[in-house]
Amino acid sequence: MLREAILHIPMSQYAHGIDERHLVFRIRSAKGDLTACTLYYADRACRVNPVLFTSQPMRLAASDTLYDYFEVVLEAPYTRVCYYFELSDGQETILYYADQFTQKHADERSEYYQFPFNHRNDIAEVPAWLKEAVVYNIFPDSFATSKEYIAEKAKAAYFNATVTTGQNGGTLRGIADNITYLLNLGINCIYVNPIFAAEEYHKYDLLDYYHIDPCFGTNEDFKVLVDSCHKSGIRVIIDGVFNHCGWHFFAFEDVVQNGENSRYKDWFYRLTYPVVRPDNGEEIPNYDCFAYERKMPKLNTANPEVEQYFCDVGRYWVKEFDIDGWRLDVANEVNFDFWRAFRRAVKAVKPDCVLIGEVWESAQPWLRGDMFDSSMNYDLRKNCRDFFALEQIDADGFDARVTAMRMRYTQNILYGQLNLLDSHDVSRFFTLCGEDKARFKLAVIFQMTFVGIPSVFYGDEKGLAGRLEHEYRRPMYWGTDESGLFQFYQRLIAIRKQHQALIEGGFKTISAEKGSGLYAYERANADETIVILLNASSEHVEIGNFISQGQELLAREGLECNSLSPYGYTIFKR
Amino acid sequence: MLREAILHIPMSQYAHGIDERHLVFRIRSAKGDLTACTLYYADRACRVNPVLFTSQPMRLAASDTLYDYFEVVLEAPYTRVCYYFELSDGQETILYYADQFTQKHADERSEYYQFPFNHRNDIAEVPAWLKEAVVYNIFPDSFATSKEYIAEKAKAAYFNATVTTGQNGGTLRGIADNITYLLNLGINCIYVNPIFAAEEYHKYDLLDYYHIDPCFGTNEDFKVLVDSCHKSGIRVIIDGVFNHCGWHFFAFEDVVQNGENSRYKDWFYRLTYPVVRPDNGEEIPNYDCFAYERKMPKLNTANPEVEQYFCDVGRYWVKEFDIDGWRLDVANEVNFDFWRAFRRAVKAVKPDCVLIGEVWESAQPWLRGDMFDSSMNYDLRKNCRDFFALEQIDADGFDARVTAMRMRYTQNILYGQLNLLDSHDVSRFFTLCGEDKARFKLAVIFQMTFVGIPSVFYGDEKGLAGRLEHEYRRPMYWGTDESGLFQFYQRLIAIRKQHQALIEGGFKTISAEKGSGLYAYERANADETIVILLNASSEHVEIGNFISQGQELLAREGLECNSLSPYGYTIFKR
Repeated sequence: MLREAILHIPMSQYAHGIDERHLVFRIRSAKGDLTACTLYYADRACRVNPVLFTSQPMRLAASDTLYDYFEVVLEAPYTRVCYYFELSDGQETILYYADQFTQKHADERSEYYQFPFNHRNDIAEVPAWLKEAVVYNIFPDSFATSKEYIAEKAKAAYFNATVTTGQNGGTLRGIADNITYLLNLGINCIYVNPIFAAEEYHKYDLLDYYHIDPCFGTNEDFKVLVDSCHKSGIRVIIDGVFNHCGWHFFAFEDVVQNGENSRYKDWFYRLTYPVVRPDNGEEIPNYDCFAYERKMPKLNTANPEVEQYFCDVGRYWVKEFDIDGWRLDVANEVNFDFWRAFRRAVKAVKPDCVLIGEVWESAQPWLRGDMFDSSMNYDLRKNCRDFFALEQIDADGFDARVTAMRMRYTQNILYGQLNLLDSHDVSRFFTLCGEDKARFKLAVIFQMTFVGIPSVFYGDEKGLAGRLEHEYRRPMYWGTDESGLFQFYQRLIAIRKQHQALIEGGFKTISAEKGSGLYAYERANADETIVILLNASSEHVEIGNFISQGQELLAREGLECNSLSPYGYTIFKR
Repeated sequence: MLREAILHIPMSQYAHGIDERHLVFRIRSAKGDLTACTLYYADRACRVNPVLFTSQPMRLAASDTLYDYFEVVLEAPYTRVCYYFELSDGQETILYYADQFTQKHADERSEYYQFPFNHRNDIAEVPAWLKEAVVYNIFPDSFATSKEYIAEKAKAAYFNATVTTGQNGGTLRGIADNITYLLNLGINCIYVNPIFAAEEYHKYDLLDYYHIDPCFGTNEDFKVLVDSCHKSGIRVIIDGVFNHCGWHFFAFEDVVQNGENSRYKDWFYRLTYPVVRPDNGEEIPNYDCFAYERKMPKLNTANPEVEQYFCDVGRYWVKEFDIDGWRLDVANEVNFDFWRAFRRAVKAVKPDCVLIGEVWESAQPWLRGDMFDSSMNYDLRKNCRDFFALEQIDADGFDARVTAMRMRYTQNILYGQLNLLDSHDVSRFFTLCGEDKARFKLAVIFQMTFVGIPSVFYGDEKGLAGRLEHEYRRPMYWGTDESGLFQFYQRLIAIRKQHQALIEGGFKTISAEKGSGLYAYERANADETIVILLNASSEHVEIGNFISQGQELLAREGLECNSLSPYGYTIFKR
C-alpha cells in the first residue's frame, strides 16, 4: 500500500455534516491502490467500554491522475462520532486513525479520529433557491438603456460635487425593460456588477454606498428593478465592494484634508502623513490600495467602526430593497472577521440572502459556513479553457481537474458554486475559443450540466467576443441573433431546469481516456440519469458503448450512428 | 518523484503569517525523496507582466516515518503573495502550484498558489506571557485547606436551596495559603478546575456561573486568591463549562417546571416534553446531555440568548476578578460561533487573557485565530506514554509522533500548546510508568523541554499515583517529599526558565534511530543551543557522537563517559 498517498483531514471536506443526521466521510489513496476501504464508526459517548463500532463500506467516488477518493454518506444515529478506516490493497489490511497506520485498536476511544459533535449551527448550508439558480451577470453600463437598446454613448453626472461617468449608457431601467428578454432566455437570477455612486464607469471606486450612481438611475429605479424581477421570479444579486473605496469617499476625503487629525485615519491601511492623492498612476501612494490603484484606497475592515459601517450597508440594501444576495469583491483580501460580521448582519435580516465571494483560487477557507455560501468558480473557466478552447489537456487531464473541483469542498457547498466561463474581469470565453462556436458550445454544456450553478456573462448568448477590457465589456448586442447561440443557451438552460438530476444529482465520470478528447459523464438522482458526451477533439470518437436502448435524446450535434463527429455532443436521459 | 506524497494546503499551517512581515511556507514530500525544494514568490499585485518571482531555498525542517517537511520563513516585502514550488529529486525538476505538477509557468498569476493578503487581524497569535508560562493544574477539592494541609474530609453546604458537596476539603483559601509552595516549585501560572457553585465535588455540573461554590469559599476569597497570585507573579486560569450546565441551573429548573411554556426551552438541545430528570443513571434522558450524563443537560449555545448569557459570564470574571485565562471544557462539542463570540467578549476586556480549549485530538479547526489561543495537548501524553512509560514505540516512532505534533499547527500556536502528562481526566502518568521514577522523569524532561508550555497536575511533583478517578484526584500529599521528584521538578522548571531557547527556540531532532530507545534533540535560538539526550530503554546507549568540548551540563542521571545507562538522561548547553 502506498501509505504516503493516504489523506484524511478531520473536520474538513473529508469529514463534514450535510444535515443534523447525515455525515460525509472521505479518504484519499493512491490511484488503483486500494481494493477495499471501510469506515468503522461509533458513538464516542457510548457507555460501553470498549466502544462498539459499526462498519460501512466506502465507495470509490472519484479518481484523478494520482488518487482515488473513497466516500460514504452516513445516516448517523448519534451526533458524536469516533471513527477509523480499514484499508486493504489485497496484500495487507491495516487500520488508519490519528493519521497513523496500525494493526491494533486504540487503548482509548479518544485516540481514534473524532467528529466531536455534528452541530446544526456548524453545518455549511446553501440557501435552497441558490442551487436552482441560473445566473445572468450584467455589467450595468454596457447592458441596456431601454428595451433591446443600448445607447453606446458616454455620459457624466454629478454626485454631490463629484463627477461620475458612464461609457455606454446602460441603466437600471434598461435592465428592468429587458426582463422579458431574460425570461425568454430562461435565467432566474441576475448578478449585477456595482451600481452605487462611483467615478469610473465600472463603479468599483465607490463614492457612496447608499445611493445608486446617477448615470445608472436612482434608488427608486433600483426598487422598481428588484420588484419587477421578483414579480417575474428572478432573484437579484448585487456587487459589494468593501475591500476598498474610491478616493472621494467621505472618510478618505477627511483623511486627505485632516491627516493625522482625521477621525477616520484608522479607517484605512498603512497611512503615512500627509496623505496625498498621487497625480499619476505610476507613483506608489502612501496608503495601501487595491493592487496599487491609487484611486482605490484599501479600507481597514478590521476596525470595528468600519465593520459596523459596512455591515449597516449590507443590511440596508437587503432590508430596504429586498435584494437576494451580495457578490463580494476582492473577498480574499478582506479580514475574516469582517466577513463573519457581515454574514451575521445580512442573514439576520434575510436568512436566505446569499453571499458569494470573489475568490479565484480554492475558496475552502471562506466556505466553512461562517463566511460565504458560494464563490466564483474561476477554475471551471480555467479547466474548460485548457480542454475545450485550447486542447492543451486531454479528457483524462480534464477529468482530474474536474475531480479536484468536486472534492475540494463540502458537499452542500459544491452545489452552490458559481460556475462561470467569463466575467467582467477576463477575456470572453468565446474569444479564447477563437470564436469557434463548436468548442464554445461544449464548454457551455459542461457549465450547464456540472455540479453547481451556471453564470452567464451578458452577451455570451449572442456570441459577444473580446480579449481586452474595453472589448469584453463592450455594449450588449441587441440585434437579432445570427450566431444561433441564443437558442442554444435557451435549450441548455431549459434542459437544466427540466431535469432535477442536473441540479441536485450526483456526478460520475463515464469516460475520460488518456489521449482522447471524449469526455463522458452522468448526473443522476433517484429518479433519472442524464448522460453527457462531449467530443473536444478534431477526431471522430466512438460512443457506442455509452448508448443504450430506450434513451431520450435531449440535445445533440454531430451524433452519428455510433460516433460523435469532431466537437460533437449529445445529451440524453437514460 | 513520489508525487502522491506531495502536500501543500494554502491558508493553513502550510502557509501562514506569523506577523505582518513574516510568512511561513511548508511543503510535505515523501521521506528522502527530494534533493532540493525552492519557493518562488512574487507580489500578486505586481504591475509588471508576467509577474517577477524571487526564489528562496526551503530547508528540511522535520521528517517522520513517511514524509519530509520543507519550510521557509519569508521576510515578505509585500502582503499579497503568489507562489509556487520547484521540486527536484535529482532526476527530474518540476513546478508545483494549484495542486498540479507541471513543467510550465502559468498563463495568469491568479493560477499560482495565492496568499491573498497577510492580514494583521487574521494572524493567529498567542499572548506573549503564555509562551513563558509553567502551569500548575489544581483540582480545588483535593489540593489544600490551609498551608500545607488538606482536611481529607467530605463536606456539604447550601447554595440557595441546593446542596453542594466536597470530598476532600480543598478551598480557595487553601490555594492562596500555598503560594509560597508554588513559588518554591517555580511555576508562574495556575489553572484551576471549576470553582463555581455545583452539586458534585468536581463542579462540572454547574448551578450558578456567578458564585464560587460555598464548599470552596466565596467570591471574596477568589479575589484574594487572584490578587495574591498576581502579587507573586502567578497568572490565574479558571475552568469554563459552557457545553452543559447542572440540572438545577435556573434555566433547566424552569424547563422542568414549565415544559413547553418555559421561556428557556430554547436554551437546551433536543428536548421533548415533559422534561423529566431521570431517577437513575441508566435511563437515557429526553434531553441532550454531556455524554449521557443526565445531570449535565447540554446547553444550546447557538441560541443568541445563551451566547449572550455566557459571554457575559466570560467577561464578568475577567473584568471583576482580573483572571488571566479560561480553560474551556468540552470545547469541541460547542458550536464554533459561540467560541468566536466568547473570544470577542473576553478579549475586548483583556486582550492578553488566554483561551485554552479542551480538545484531545488535533485542535487545528479551533486554532486559526478566531477561537482559542491554545489547546490541551493530550497527544503529548499519549506519545510519552507509548515511548517512555510502555516502550511500545522506538525513538524513530516517537520522533514521527513528535514531528506530527510540531507540524500540525501554525508556528505561533505551537509555542502556546498546553503540554500535559496528566490531568483530572486521566490516570496519573506516574502510574502508567508503573511508578518507575526513572521513566517518569524522562517524560517530565520531554514535557519541560518540548515546544509549548508544560502543565503539571498537582501532586505529580510528589509522586502522586492513581489509575481510577478517585485515585488520580486523591488529596494532595503535603508531607515531606521522599520521592526526590519535587527537587527534580524544581530543577527542570528552573532550567526551562533560565534558558530562553527552551521557550522560544526551534526544535531539531538529533537522533531517533529505529529500534533504539535513545531520543536526542536540541532547542536553539540565536544565543544558545540546549541539547537533550533521553535513553528510554533498558540498554546502555552510546552518546559519544552528541557530546562536544566545552559544553555546560545542566542536568544528568546515568551519564557515563560516552554512554547513558538505562533510563539515563543528560541536558547540556552547547
